[in-house]
Amino acid sequence: MTPSRADENPGELSRATAQRLSHYLRVVAHLSAGATVSSSQLADSVGVSDAQVRRDLAALGHLGQRGVGYDAAALAGVIRRTLGTDRGWKAVLVGVGNLARALLRYRGFRDQGFEIVGLFDAAADKIDHEVEGLRVYPMEALKEQLAVRKAELGVITVPGEAAQVVADALVKAGVKGLLSFAPGLLRVPPHVRVVTVDLAIQFEQLAFLVNHGSADGV
Amino acid sequence: MTPSRADENPGELSRATAQRLSHYLRVVAHLSAGATVSSSQLADSVGVSDAQVRRDLAALGHLGQRGVGYDAAALAGVIRRTLGTDRGWKAVLVGVGNLARALLRYRGFRDQGFEIVGLFDAAADKIDHEVEGLRVYPMEALKEQLAVRKAELGVITVPGEAAQVVADALVKAGVKGLLSFAPGLLRVPPHVRVVTVDLAIQFEQLAFLVNHGSADGV
Repeated sequence: MTPSRADENPGELSRATAQRLSHYLRVVAHLSAGATVSSSQLADSVGVSDAQVRRDLAALGHLGQRGVGYDAAALAGVIRRTLGTDRGWKAVLVGVGNLARALLRYRGFRDQGFEIVGLFDAAADKIDHEVEGLRVYPMEALKEQLAVRKAELGVITVPGEAAQVVADALVKAGVKGLLSFAPGLLRVPPHVRVVTVDLAIQFEQLAFLVNHGSADGV
Repeated sequence: MTPSRADENPGELSRATAQRLSHYLRVVAHLSAGATVSSSQLADSVGVSDAQVRRDLAALGHLGQRGVGYDAAALAGVIRRTLGTDRGWKAVLVGVGNLARALLRYRGFRDQGFEIVGLFDAAADKIDHEVEGLRVYPMEALKEQLAVRKAELGVITVPGEAAQVVADALVKAGVKGLLSFAPGLLRVPPHVRVVTVDLAIQFEQLAFLVNHGSADGV
């Protein structure tokens, strides 16, 4: 964990802060109704300093009470509102392979309000088949289906060499954000946001941590 | 991107710096032999400031030449040495489902020196089957197989509720690091490193970026 950019630009939440908020949310979302949580409990669970937790949560205007701590349910609500996951998000997915099947079965997505509502593939032998209850459409149907299904996000699970073409097609069809599992950087217009889950980077980070013995494991 | 902790503790590389190094490596690894790259090219590709790139690379003792830039191949070598991916890493994987199949087919891993050398599952109907050329072993064989195959890392692709039990078994068998795709935080002894790929967090970060329009897309 690093000092957040919010320290420099108060009012603007940095990406690093948003990541810590996600981690705090994981902790408080598992607590029972009516539970309270202290900043030091959150700090221990997530692996950051107590002061960092208090700074992050103070920036949300949610200060907790000295000696009492934060109300877990209220804190979860504030974090979800801040991150934008207090409402549902619909996504289409392009590239129906093993990873797509794993994602469609991943309960964590729907629990967070993230729903995959349409499947697309370029391979003729996959079109019109059903996968996890969803029909696979050809790429040509992307724009129309995106509008019909009111999807705002795109998930890219195609091999790396096809990712940019798919990203271009999703952007043209009107998505606001992309979650990409393809290695490499995607070029998109500035109004489209991208989060890349690059598995090679995850592995490199693990190698780095094992090699260097950093205590910073989040 | 955020200021790195290395600014506070020179000599110690922060996790945030290590992540930026991974991103620089993605860029330079795609350049042809003999190519050079400038700090501003790296900055543009990765989405950080020119000054940040120069600071990060200076910390590696790899300064480049003013007006010439960095030799791409040499820079890739230095970054790999720093991250610890200049040598091979062997891993065992526990939980043979769709995600496991996707990971086994993911070429990016082997390209980075990361090799999955053993598969394990608790389900009797999966034991002794072959998946992507590897035999599936029962959990009881973990310790023995880890030693035989000289694996140092464990990949966890079981559902969330089974993840802690699997992590405990992998730690007991002697792994030094875990790459977990299960949601939630894992408790491990301090000598074991964990990188968690929590897909709900990735989605939350995308929602956050789409909602807030941060320009920080890496």
